[in-house]
Amino acid sequence: MTRIYFQAGPTTLPKEVMQQAKEEWDDFLGTGLNIMEHSHRGSEYEGIHEQAKTRMKRLLDIPDTHEVLFLQGGASLQFAMIPMNFIQGGKTAKYVLTGAWSEKAYKEAQKIGSCEAAITGKESEYRTLPETNYVSSENDAYLHITSNNTIYGTQWPDLHAFTHQNLVADMSSDIMSRPISVENYGLIYAGAQKNLGPSGVTAVIIRKDLLQENKSVPSILSYSVHAKNNSLYNTPPVYSIYLLNLVLGWVERSGGVIEMEKRNHNKAGVIYDTIDKSKGFYNGYATPESRSNMNITFTLPNDELEKQFIKESEANGIYGLKGHRSVGGFRASIYNAVPQDSCDSLAQFMIHFQEKYGK
Amino acid sequence: MTRIYFQAGPTTLPKEVMQQAKEEWDDFLGTGLNIMEHSHRGSEYEGIHEQAKTRMKRLLDIPDTHEVLFLQGGASLQFAMIPMNFIQGGKTAKYVLTGAWSEKAYKEAQKIGSCEAAITGKESEYRTLPETNYVSSENDAYLHITSNNTIYGTQWPDLHAFTHQNLVADMSSDIMSRPISVENYGLIYAGAQKNLGPSGVTAVIIRKDLLQENKSVPSILSYSVHAKNNSLYNTPPVYSIYLLNLVLGWVERSGGVIEMEKRNHNKAGVIYDTIDKSKGFYNGYATPESRSNMNITFTLPNDELEKQFIKESEANGIYGLKGHRSVGGFRASIYNAVPQDSCDSLAQFMIHFQEKYGK
Ligand SMILES: Cc1ncc(COP(=O)(O)O)c(C=O)c1O
Ligand SMILES: Cc1ncc(COP(=O)(O)O)c(C=O)c1O
Ligand SMILES: [Mg+2]
Ligand SMILES: [Mg+2]
Ligand SMILES: [Mg+2]
Ligand SMILES: [Mg+2]
Repeated sequence: MTRIYFQAGPTTLPKEVMQQAKEEWDDFLGTGLNIMEHSHRGSEYEGIHEQAKTRMKRLLDIPDTHEVLFLQGGASLQFAMIPMNFIQGGKTAKYVLTGAWSEKAYKEAQKIGSCEAAITGKESEYRTLPETNYVSSENDAYLHITSNNTIYGTQWPDLHAFTHQNLVADMSSDIMSRPISVENYGLIYAGAQKNLGPSGVTAVIIRKDLLQENKSVPSILSYSVHAKNNSLYNTPPVYSIYLLNLVLGWVERSGGVIEMEKRNHNKAGVIYDTIDKSKGFYNGYATPESRSNMNITFTLPNDELEKQFIKESEANGIYGLKGHRSVGGFRASIYNAVPQDSCDSLAQFMIHFQEKYGK
Repeated sequence: MTRIYFQAGPTTLPKEVMQQAKEEWDDFLGTGLNIMEHSHRGSEYEGIHEQAKTRMKRLLDIPDTHEVLFLQGGASLQFAMIPMNFIQGGKTAKYVLTGAWSEKAYKEAQKIGSCEAAITGKESEYRTLPETNYVSSENDAYLHITSNNTIYGTQWPDLHAFTHQNLVADMSSDIMSRPISVENYGLIYAGAQKNLGPSGVTAVIIRKDLLQENKSVPSILSYSVHAKNNSLYNTPPVYSIYLLNLVLGWVERSGGVIEMEKRNHNKAGVIYDTIDKSKGFYNGYATPESRSNMNITFTLPNDELEKQFIKESEANGIYGLKGHRSVGGFRASIYNAVPQDSCDSLAQFMIHFQEKYGK
């Protein structure tokens, strides 16, 4: 039985990408080496690095006012780099709290400089996204948002709700899943391991006027140093960027972010439909208006049924559904590389499971 | 013609490792996925993570007083993390300057806290390692050394020359190439991309008493946070660690670090011999007593010959010899995975080249 997977990340990459990487494994461009065995200063890697940047720009329609960086350290390193680079001159950073990851980003910023929670959705246990009634202040270093809340399964339906001179967005779990207006942001960041590739690389899109030199920030933690060195200040994670580039090629050939958005909407649709038609057997965690098209969270009436659900789903070749411990229940993560078929199979399984155990 | 490579890193991995990774590409342990597509919280990855730690401990004879960590960010991130974690309480960090990388480590530390150059080999243009006449002080946060100087091609012949309560060593370019006495160190670090695997992961060996919690250090930059979370504080670079683990398996099967040291000594021997017998046609950059068994640096009598040397070496299938711009000439990096054969071929080529162009 072919297994299907719904992990929150790292997770499945497009089959075509894995196939191409396998074909190039032994002999990248006739060199007799895998690309990961090449110097990051050589022409073989350079071609990939530049192509990945160009594809990012094209796919997300990134204007010339912005730079693309590929960094290490995961999205979690951005939680530290952002305040280290941008809280200065008596300014205060503002955070919009919509889940575990934005709380973590906020907590890390508190170690570094002045910051405040601008809005919080905590009262709803992060089931619902809060009102976007924040009025920006001259004294704000930036306003930090999380576009998709991986753990709770909520996603801002309209990112235009936020306007801020320095809007910073953690898009780790929904970048490249729908069009965005990059010109509205000071900085966007995303760990690759959901929609962009394997773990080990983080994409950063930064407005060039934010690339101010600051001698007190360690070089490796300075956006301006990375930008000046075209993300080659030190040895990049060559193979992760190689695969990211292949994934971007796959997104392009598939029709870009508009097509991704359509697919994700349809994929999520069949699962949310199943939840909604279950008369409460499946209980969606997120309120309908805040639902994510990337991470679908739900619970079952009791623990026993939840154990049975995992057992039978795996017996049916369906893996990676266990929810995050802070929410419990289940989470189906359906990033770009998860095909409609897998979502249809999950919905079918859910319907059969309810027929068997619901009354 | 099969090419042979001598890059400074990233560079060639053992053929056996690349073969195994290729065999497991499509279907890691019957899961139908590559290991990089698995969650870092799942049992498949967990097995690799633990095995890599265990192999590091076994191969380097790491005592229970020390912890092994796998981090992102390259060795360059360690240049920042070390002073951020350890310069405190009015202490001063001391640096031994033996090349470009130790200078960089020192420069980064200066942005973070109090530090001083304890000894420097700069007067010799880093051709010779300096006297190890440093007397440690109670007030030292740590003493930082670089075991092998990748760019200049020097290597401390005997690391026992240094004793310090908190000896910190950048072993990026010679870890796992010879036995070391881990108990003498407070911290050892190494970017993987020379002797341990592909780029994207950094190995850190840290004495447990140095794992003090410090709330003002961002979590992602705190050794104590990484240790407490068994290097799973955030998503690890799964595939880099997978390959690192395969490389460690290969070192074990090959006979461990004692065998590596013997091989590296013999490999370097044939090239240094060729230099020494060339009557000055090949001019070694490092003085003989400071020579590295990892990076062999040399120049030719003039620019024209150097151009010709690169041209003919590539025509003979020999790649990656161009020296770092700060030294010029050539550098043959002969890390663990470079076989004796490749070194013999290079020596043969050098002899023929001299026969043709030397007089
Ligand atoms: C929204 C979001 N931000 C940040 C992170 C942390 O990413 P990393 O593990 O790469 O540090 C995650 C990981 O799941 C995430 O989903
Ligand atoms: C001795 C030494 N230290 C540090 C580095 C920097 O490593 P990274 O590029 O992983 O930051 C290198 C890279 O060549 C090195 O040789
Ligand atoms: Mg997650
Ligand atoms: Mg969340
Ligand atoms: Mg180097
Ligand atoms: Mg050096």
